[in-house]
Amino acid sequence: MDDDSRQVYFLSNGTAITAETLGHSLLAQFPGLSFRTKTIPFIDTVEKANKVIDEIDRSVDESNGLPIIISTMADLDLKNIIDSSKALVLDPLADFLPRLEKILDEESSHAHLSHRFDNPSLYESRIDAIDFSLIHDDGGKTRSYDETDIILIGVSRTGKTPSCLYLALQFGLKAANYPITEEDMDSDRLPEPIRPYMDRLYGLTTEANRLCKIRQERRPNSRYSSLEQCRYELKAAEDMYIHHKIHYLNTTTMSVEEIAARIVEDTGLHRMEQSS
Amino acid sequence: MDDDSRQVYFLSNGTAITAETLGHSLLAQFPGLSFRTKTIPFIDTVEKANKVIDEIDRSVDESNGLPIIISTMADLDLKNIIDSSKALVLDPLADFLPRLEKILDEESSHAHLSHRFDNPSLYESRIDAIDFSLIHDDGGKTRSYDETDIILIGVSRTGKTPSCLYLALQFGLKAANYPITEEDMDSDRLPEPIRPYMDRLYGLTTEANRLCKIRQERRPNSRYSSLEQCRYELKAAEDMYIHHKIHYLNTTTMSVEEIAARIVEDTGLHRMEQSS
Repeated sequence: MDDDSRQVYFLSNGTAITAETLGHSLLAQFPGLSFRTKTIPFIDTVEKANKVIDEIDRSVDESNGLPIIISTMADLDLKNIIDSSKALVLDPLADFLPRLEKILDEESSHAHLSHRFDNPSLYESRIDAIDFSLIHDDGGKTRSYDETDIILIGVSRTGKTPSCLYLALQFGLKAANYPITEEDMDSDRLPEPIRPYMDRLYGLTTEANRLCKIRQERRPNSRYSSLEQCRYELKAAEDMYIHHKIHYLNTTTMSVEEIAARIVEDTGLHRMEQSS
Repeated sequence: MDDDSRQVYFLSNGTAITAETLGHSLLAQFPGLSFRTKTIPFIDTVEKANKVIDEIDRSVDESNGLPIIISTMADLDLKNIIDSSKALVLDPLADFLPRLEKILDEESSHAHLSHRFDNPSLYESRIDAIDFSLIHDDGGKTRSYDETDIILIGVSRTGKTPSCLYLALQFGLKAANYPITEEDMDSDRLPEPIRPYMDRLYGLTTEANRLCKIRQERRPNSRYSSLEQCRYELKAAEDMYIHHKIHYLNTTTMSVEEIAARIVEDTGLHRMEQSS
């Protein structure tokens, strides 16, 4: 815990995911500073809001700088309580809803809405996609590739599994993944199970030093985790992508979110509609 | 496609996840209206930005109402191009960064930053959590429960798996899950593998009609998916939670995000720091 770090709160009457996501985007614009963040979701009564703001305001005098609150309060009474804080309060709902109301010629509901309740079929399509991606993880099942939206390929530990799960969770895509193993590298042909699905293949690769480090944590001092082996496998996989004209992505510096978003953008796969 | 629906664009020089997340929160405040949304991420050159805005502006005259752009442009040149659009442009970075710069007494970087590049250990802790959650899905492995942050329990199809994966992806938590089966319901004692971990158990439940509908899609007209069986299992599981004083959540109307956020809030589990 850094004494110089600025305290930042993410507050919401809902999950606070919007406040957190926006907040992290904002804070990332100040890479030279350090922040302590605290998320307080489900502030859905006047009592809770008053308690939270009392606590935040009590801490103001002790802190080195004014705390920052990123808040998404749909409810106006609660919003006004948050606004009364001594901290700097940034609320994109408060700022943007009046402008949207004007252009849409409609009042906003000021209610916390559950997306699932609004749209149960969306919930189910995501669950289906997650189920599919789990069953089709790591080449586990290859017979229903006909149904898949995409098949990620790559050598061990290039991020296939988290990318598939994120594609399923965030975008509702049925994402399978198939590992490229040493046996596959000796052949000019693609592995049998993925061969009929050329148009759905997408390759992942990374830098050898990075892969080596990740593999060392799993199996230290093994052939599997040696830099030489990592170099060999990555080169062979990249040659395979190029030879078969498979789109691929170097994920070395990317978050799971960015890998998934790049794949969706690159392939033109349809993003799930999250509200309507 | 509804002719009356308003066109909304989510634009970003990065993944556009922040723009999408905020955008969906804003649009959800207008439940009476319908929207068509289009996400365009990675607008990271002047050429791309001009092309996107040209296309959006060309569509303005044809549309029934002015399109709405939710944009998160860290780069000022790109931001100015987006701002020049005829559409309504809402950009929380543009609005909030000057206020943050002032209070922090520091200029923002105006650069697109990769979170992973900033914080490789965060990437790895998320990947570890995902690996853990996959291995410990559906009672698959119970020997390393000592390492787990939480064990979700519940009858089949109450949302354990997606909730665990989201807890791992979003919060970096090691989340196992263990299914409550009929055998477990005949006993007053908790199932053997989870018995030593009382303090990490968290129950999920749902409404019988809802569970019945979800199970019908998997195994239509079976005993498993009958309303009577769903009622019996849910009642037995809830009795078990109450008898053993296990916190539990009724997930009927909740999104995966909300289930995960409620669990984190309810258990006081530490949310992963996403930036520093």
